[in-house]
Amino acid sequence: MTDAVSDATDGAPRHADAGLLSPTRAGTPAEATTSDDAWLQAMLDAEAGLVRAQSRLGLVPGDAARAITALARAEHLDVVEIARLARGAANPVVALVRAFTALVASKDPAAAEYVHRGSTSQDIMDTAAMLVARRTLAPLVADLERIAVALRELAVAHRDTLMPGRTLALHAVPTTFGLKAAGWLSGVEEAAVRLARIRDHELPVQLGGAAGTLAGYTEYALMDRGTRPGAPGPGEFAERLTAEFAAQVGLNEPALPWHTARTPVAGLAAQLALTTGALGKVAVDVQLLSRTETAEVAEPAAEGRGVSSAMPHKRNPALATLVRSAALQVPPLAGAVMGCMLAEDERPAGAWHAEWLPLRECLRLTGGAAHTAVELVEGLAVFPDRMRANLGLTGGLIVSERLAAALTPVLGKGPAKELMSRASAEAARGGRTLGEVLAAAPELEGRYTPRELAALLDPANYPGAAGPLVDRAVRGPRDRF
Amino acid sequence: MTDAVSDATDGAPRHADAGLLSPTRAGTPAEATTSDDAWLQAMLDAEAGLVRAQSRLGLVPGDAARAITALARAEHLDVVEIARLARGAANPVVALVRAFTALVASKDPAAAEYVHRGSTSQDIMDTAAMLVARRTLAPLVADLERIAVALRELAVAHRDTLMPGRTLALHAVPTTFGLKAAGWLSGVEEAAVRLARIRDHELPVQLGGAAGTLAGYTEYALMDRGTRPGAPGPGEFAERLTAEFAAQVGLNEPALPWHTARTPVAGLAAQLALTTGALGKVAVDVQLLSRTETAEVAEPAAEGRGVSSAMPHKRNPALATLVRSAALQVPPLAGAVMGCMLAEDERPAGAWHAEWLPLRECLRLTGGAAHTAVELVEGLAVFPDRMRANLGLTGGLIVSERLAAALTPVLGKGPAKELMSRASAEAARGGRTLGEVLAAAPELEGRYTPRELAALLDPANYPGAAGPLVDRAVRGPRDRF
Amino acid sequence: MTDAVSDATDGAPRHADAGLLSPTRAGTPAEATTSDDAWLQAMLDAEAGLVRAQSRLGLVPGDAARAITALARAEHLDVVEIARLARGAANPVVALVRAFTALVASKDPAAAEYVHRGSTSQDIMDTAAMLVARRTLAPLVADLERIAVALRELAVAHRDTLMPGRTLALHAVPTTFGLKAAGWLSGVEEAAVRLARIRDHELPVQLGGAAGTLAGYTEYALMDRGTRPGAPGPGEFAERLTAEFAAQVGLNEPALPWHTARTPVAGLAAQLALTTGALGKVAVDVQLLSRTETAEVAEPAAEGRGVSSAMPHKRNPALATLVRSAALQVPPLAGAVMGCMLAEDERPAGAWHAEWLPLRECLRLTGGAAHTAVELVEGLAVFPDRMRANLGLTGGLIVSERLAAALTPVLGKGPAKELMSRASAEAARGGRTLGEVLAAAPELEGRYTPRELAALLDPANYPGAAGPLVDRAVRGPRDRF
Amino acid sequence: MTDAVSDATDGAPRHADAGLLSPTRAGTPAEATTSDDAWLQAMLDAEAGLVRAQSRLGLVPGDAARAITALARAEHLDVVEIARLARGAANPVVALVRAFTALVASKDPAAAEYVHRGSTSQDIMDTAAMLVARRTLAPLVADLERIAVALRELAVAHRDTLMPGRTLALHAVPTTFGLKAAGWLSGVEEAAVRLARIRDHELPVQLGGAAGTLAGYTEYALMDRGTRPGAPGPGEFAERLTAEFAAQVGLNEPALPWHTARTPVAGLAAQLALTTGALGKVAVDVQLLSRTETAEVAEPAAEGRGVSSAMPHKRNPALATLVRSAALQVPPLAGAVMGCMLAEDERPAGAWHAEWLPLRECLRLTGGAAHTAVELVEGLAVFPDRMRANLGLTGGLIVSERLAAALTPVLGKGPAKELMSRASAEAARGGRTLGEVLAAAPELEGRYTPRELAALLDPANYPGAAGPLVDRAVRGPRDRF
Repeated sequence: MTDAVSDATDGAPRHADAGLLSPTRAGTPAEATTSDDAWLQAMLDAEAGLVRAQSRLGLVPGDAARAITALARAEHLDVVEIARLARGAANPVVALVRAFTALVASKDPAAAEYVHRGSTSQDIMDTAAMLVARRTLAPLVADLERIAVALRELAVAHRDTLMPGRTLALHAVPTTFGLKAAGWLSGVEEAAVRLARIRDHELPVQLGGAAGTLAGYTEYALMDRGTRPGAPGPGEFAERLTAEFAAQVGLNEPALPWHTARTPVAGLAAQLALTTGALGKVAVDVQLLSRTETAEVAEPAAEGRGVSSAMPHKRNPALATLVRSAALQVPPLAGAVMGCMLAEDERPAGAWHAEWLPLRECLRLTGGAAHTAVELVEGLAVFPDRMRANLGLTGGLIVSERLAAALTPVLGKGPAKELMSRASAEAARGGRTLGEVLAAAPELEGRYTPRELAALLDPANYPGAAGPLVDRAVRGPRDRF
Repeated sequence: MTDAVSDATDGAPRHADAGLLSPTRAGTPAEATTSDDAWLQAMLDAEAGLVRAQSRLGLVPGDAARAITALARAEHLDVVEIARLARGAANPVVALVRAFTALVASKDPAAAEYVHRGSTSQDIMDTAAMLVARRTLAPLVADLERIAVALRELAVAHRDTLMPGRTLALHAVPTTFGLKAAGWLSGVEEAAVRLARIRDHELPVQLGGAAGTLAGYTEYALMDRGTRPGAPGPGEFAERLTAEFAAQVGLNEPALPWHTARTPVAGLAAQLALTTGALGKVAVDVQLLSRTETAEVAEPAAEGRGVSSAMPHKRNPALATLVRSAALQVPPLAGAVMGCMLAEDERPAGAWHAEWLPLRECLRLTGGAAHTAVELVEGLAVFPDRMRANLGLTGGLIVSERLAAALTPVLGKGPAKELMSRASAEAARGGRTLGEVLAAAPELEGRYTPRELAALLDPANYPGAAGPLVDRAVRGPRDRF
Repeated sequence: MTDAVSDATDGAPRHADAGLLSPTRAGTPAEATTSDDAWLQAMLDAEAGLVRAQSRLGLVPGDAARAITALARAEHLDVVEIARLARGAANPVVALVRAFTALVASKDPAAAEYVHRGSTSQDIMDTAAMLVARRTLAPLVADLERIAVALRELAVAHRDTLMPGRTLALHAVPTTFGLKAAGWLSGVEEAAVRLARIRDHELPVQLGGAAGTLAGYTEYALMDRGTRPGAPGPGEFAERLTAEFAAQVGLNEPALPWHTARTPVAGLAAQLALTTGALGKVAVDVQLLSRTETAEVAEPAAEGRGVSSAMPHKRNPALATLVRSAALQVPPLAGAVMGCMLAEDERPAGAWHAEWLPLRECLRLTGGAAHTAVELVEGLAVFPDRMRANLGLTGGLIVSERLAAALTPVLGKGPAKELMSRASAEAARGGRTLGEVLAAAPELEGRYTPRELAALLDPANYPGAAGPLVDRAVRGPRDRF
Repeated sequence: MTDAVSDATDGAPRHADAGLLSPTRAGTPAEATTSDDAWLQAMLDAEAGLVRAQSRLGLVPGDAARAITALARAEHLDVVEIARLARGAANPVVALVRAFTALVASKDPAAAEYVHRGSTSQDIMDTAAMLVARRTLAPLVADLERIAVALRELAVAHRDTLMPGRTLALHAVPTTFGLKAAGWLSGVEEAAVRLARIRDHELPVQLGGAAGTLAGYTEYALMDRGTRPGAPGPGEFAERLTAEFAAQVGLNEPALPWHTARTPVAGLAAQLALTTGALGKVAVDVQLLSRTETAEVAEPAAEGRGVSSAMPHKRNPALATLVRSAALQVPPLAGAVMGCMLAEDERPAGAWHAEWLPLRECLRLTGGAAHTAVELVEGLAVFPDRMRANLGLTGGLIVSERLAAALTPVLGKGPAKELMSRASAEAARGGRTLGEVLAAAPELEGRYTPRELAALLDPANYPGAAGPLVDRAVRGPRDRF
């Protein structure tokens, strides 16, 4: 090991991950809600919720449940030590249970009997993951909704702001900045609706015991009151315990334990990738429109924003860069999580463990990207004059599609297309604009007055349905999501 | 080039892809519905549907629409030539339009004027992709539903068939084969419900024209009847044309053109990956339970199935292998498709084009995997005797969790756990079973009769809620999907 | 199934994959060398090579080896049928061996005894994969070398062609087009050298028999001549048979059978991804420099190239689009192949089978991308005048880094930086150029003559070491590759 | 935000990543060498090395270089604050330079003039990444070499330890544990050799200045001594500065700046994925051989190792699980890094930024996996008796391949295969062993004595070349790597 890390106490880096390599999420809510501290707290919340649920079913004294809940605070435990001990069991729950049981025992020995009773590592870890997801989705969906508000405003404000539509890097036909913003909006809105649905309905607790039969839980229940008349059978007990656990921690009830049916995790990761995709689309457009030669939009100016270490004049599209960098990372990470659905037996030896890091990264990169995009879209500067000027760059070629259509009834489809190809090529070589070439074309002699030709060539007369499409898009999210 | 391919005419392989490298889908419905022929047909269906839609709005003569529809058959065109010409435009639509227009012109010159009128490559290609998806999802969802039926039967039939529950490769506690099948069922059923929702509601036509404004379409419409009183404005026209197009080809209506808002494609790919994940879970379990030492299940026997080229005695789990191989490929492919959401401008220069192959592969691998899994689960042989025999392999250790629980009220949590650890270790070393060790343990002297101890150690007495969980699972798909 | 595919005979698509969805490789050498026909031929080449190798060791009569070799032609077999029968064994070799044995038996019954003798499916399939790789790498490396020649010429020709250097989408400082081309060259050259190394040294035959011990081969050898004095022991025999097999098919000798040590396949896929990365870098740059507003380069014009279906004026950067689309697909495919290294037991039940398709796709997408890039770089049009004009777009800001440096000894580092920030901001607001602002700055009064200031602000005076770096790059590939 | 994280000071988690979700690397050398602290230190090492290099060329006073070097310690800076400020520029270098310059200025104002002189963020960040890589590869390669030593010992010790060879989950033919270990060895050895080559030869410094021309560096050099006779031209200067910088920080010299030619990063990530693949192969085999029914190997026992939270008897294959979980994550991460090669312009707006996290994760997961695998293979318990017992499970079917070969000269190939298929099927149905069935087969009447038949059926007589292959493998790494 080099001296570069020699200052670490006992080999433990002071800052294993302060966000230095991920400015997209450094200091954002998603960084806090997905930290190891937050994950540890969620595991403790699961342990405490489980005891309270058992208590509500009459299996654990209320005092014990209260004592355990009160002590279930991450700051009482040493997360670094638990992380290292986690190597023994290949997951952190065993070490956590040992440390937490010792803590409870030191304050309330009787209560300690009830910690993790009947449970298994995966019940705690998966429930914690769902809690972390819920806590991250809350600000994330709120940020997406703020982005949607800002994009809706941009779409309305620029409903009729003409700009060049570009395909395969080149000017194609005119569009409006409003329609571009409406397209961004549709993607972000759909992501928000889908993530909100997951947040509200698709984050279940995990409760199955060692192999998904809830045998440990039912065994303790039988011992505690198995002989009493009217005690529920194992099926009813399992349903009631699951429902109570879900209520205590604020998650959904699953139909079955899902130790090896990983849709809750994999589906969440996939939707996070779809979300960064929608945000990344905004980012790449902002960057292209910001290019020095184009200059149709600019990121919001702020102290320290977009600064270059070498070039004092630059205002880099830094926010878009942060968003795009997240959008490049999340899809393969989501692919990794989806690959972990091949979870063999009643608990897989690796596929489960491989979910944790990429899921966390999906959550915090998406959360960070959304938080960053709020700033980007709320402050985006739009330059309609420059858009209008750029529309003229091709000397009329940007409406060649229209001319080809307009000339068809005059000349026939084939000759019209041929004339336009010829005229476009000549105009593209420079010298004369498309209008000038057409004005001199023998085929068109006497067909159009100069004014009619000018009207045909005016990009402002070729917006298609851009305006009404904007109106439709800003009406709100569609039902089908 | 080597002589290995010298027999190809003009460099064109006779069989570029006959399924040789993908037995998972060779000869399955998904192979047919996703072939280049099928894709070409879907493009022609889109072209014809567009003309019929324009005709329904009074913009194209009915005769022309009928003539175009009648000629829109893939077998009239040369798909190899179109594929090669596609290099010119980086997509096959330009070459297709040229060839198809020539075909129509040769039969009905007047109709040829209306081919692809006002349209753009992406409107055709994306609509074709959605048609191919719908045509692939139909048999795919049907196969998933057949799998669900078979798994439900397995779950019911083996509701109480005890077997070892295994975690991290080792026996953990007992479970039932019914619960295992119920877990498989829950994953497959969820995938079926979600894919059916996509099939019915989330496969929109694409209709935007050159840059998503529908300007080309509106221009022709204006020319045709712009001056008539009561003609619809561009917004109403766009809505009506989109609705009519969707109706003609049997797809959904989008809220906006989605040239660069790629959720329909990326969300589909993600759900296909979730589907192969659910199927792959079945496959890995079947393989592990088939292992020579375990032998609790076997794939259905059939002529030529599971044959080894070298070893006459083997009946390989070939179906599970085919399914698993698909489940290994689809998640990264879906990640690739999701990565293509970074679609810049009004049409991206690469991100769109990079979707086609991986989307097709996701569709046909998932379709093939489902088709294969039907055969696997419908014919799966289950060996309850072997399961029961394997339950005894650890000499009682498989219920050590239960003993630890049962002894807790007797000895206290700590001493109970300690005794069990000690006794388990001794039993694991061999020589004596766990029952024998416990019978001789001084702490337990006089606590249990031999019969009581035997009952405690009987795996059949420790199924937890496995049975009721099966009952719950087979009730049918849950609402929340 | 829909009528869209009803014309298929017996469900078999006429064209499962004619390249319609992959114009990047449609009609290229890589399509031919990786087709199912080519793969089938390679499997037959492996079978025949194995018999010849056994014959060279005296285990098979020469006549039989010659007969088998002569019949080992893909056109004699039905690849569609073999593909379908492959579902039985989860790989195509069993069906191939049956069909090929029958073919040989029909011509030379005695020879048929020697087909696939002692062998196993994976020996044939893996050897075939390496043959396909070698046959694809030959034209691929040649294409990369042609690209390098063209890029070297571009670098030399434009050694001193000034253009804006751009970072994070904005003008940064000047660079030269020669240096940009030199950077492209370095990436392509490294890829060529590495792929050539793989082609020549890292494509081994597979020879292990049923479980990697070569027991089947040695058993037959023992039977044939085990009792003869001087017969080689199994170790020597294994080495000789492997060496002879490698010589017969023209591949490398492995140290051990590699049925489950998959570096030859995974390392190849990784290097193909690195290759498309190097080519994709060229593509994204060409696209950005082609943008209508920038217009510093253009793709070569050709009949049918870059054509839009709607807009007659467009010359899309279609070649770059094809290359980029490949570069988006290959990295996740390579990730999939690398994931298949988790190959359990002596032959995995899925991980091996999941390699075939993504490996083929990596090969043919990379081959297609290289073939396409030849055309792109050999015909690339470069517009130095436009580069020079674009250099002036920021009114001098593009050399602000230089000014900050130059003013440091005059004013001190802090004040120099502060002045430049202030002046840059003022110039960026428009109205005055940076030169005009600086000429009027009180801090600089009397420091510079107008001519000195103009020289400082001339981008031509700030190329850094661009020229010498080009000289260095074009000297040829570096040793370290 | 929930109260779960309310204890964080100012929103900053105390432990954003203590390894809780990644026990594979918690507390390993790779965790320390890749922490944010380590990365920050590497950035400071790059800054200091650059000043020393400039000093060696006579451009910076020696005192300033020494002062800067002495102060370049991560513990003097606030990494959390730098990470947050990094959002302004989308990379941490701008904030680092500001903080570090202020630190130097507070101690030695004259020296502060020389911090980051002529430089750019990417020169520092990329050089730091290469330093982090080198510092991580050192212990990683050492761990791989320890693994190779242990595997070589296992291979030698078990050269002739027979066990069932398994393919597609079933017994195939006999192999030896020595040959299995030799296969593991070949993969790990190749990974070690390739990573060592990267460590020694393929980790270049980055030095290009704002747009890769080194203009900033040359400008300062010209100012300092441009007028002196004999001063080097920009080309010679660039080469000398690069060489000196490489020497100062202990990295390799690149041929060109590689701001957008990302092979050093992408190639490293790919090789890390190949390395986890080789390690993961060991892990999946260990897990399968550890299964309760198979029990041929066991992980080393250790206090707290393999502990279950619920089941006192279990000794889970926890080390293999940690290794496998890494091997599932690294390939898609490497795919993500390779995807970032599409680095547009002279510095991309996102693709560069998206490399950092996945590269770090590849490094530390691979480092952690190797460190974990050392423990796994050095302590692996092997049970030859159990292997031998398992060999007998199929009642002789495991040598059916041999019998088919042996009977061929007796009965002819077809009849021999047919008899074996029939006899195998009968033996597989149970009741009689293969030997008993064959002894009663009429075709073989009088052919073999019972002793001859027993010898033919003894797995010990069918090891093929397993032993000599082991001998070959343990001779050491092959030249071709």
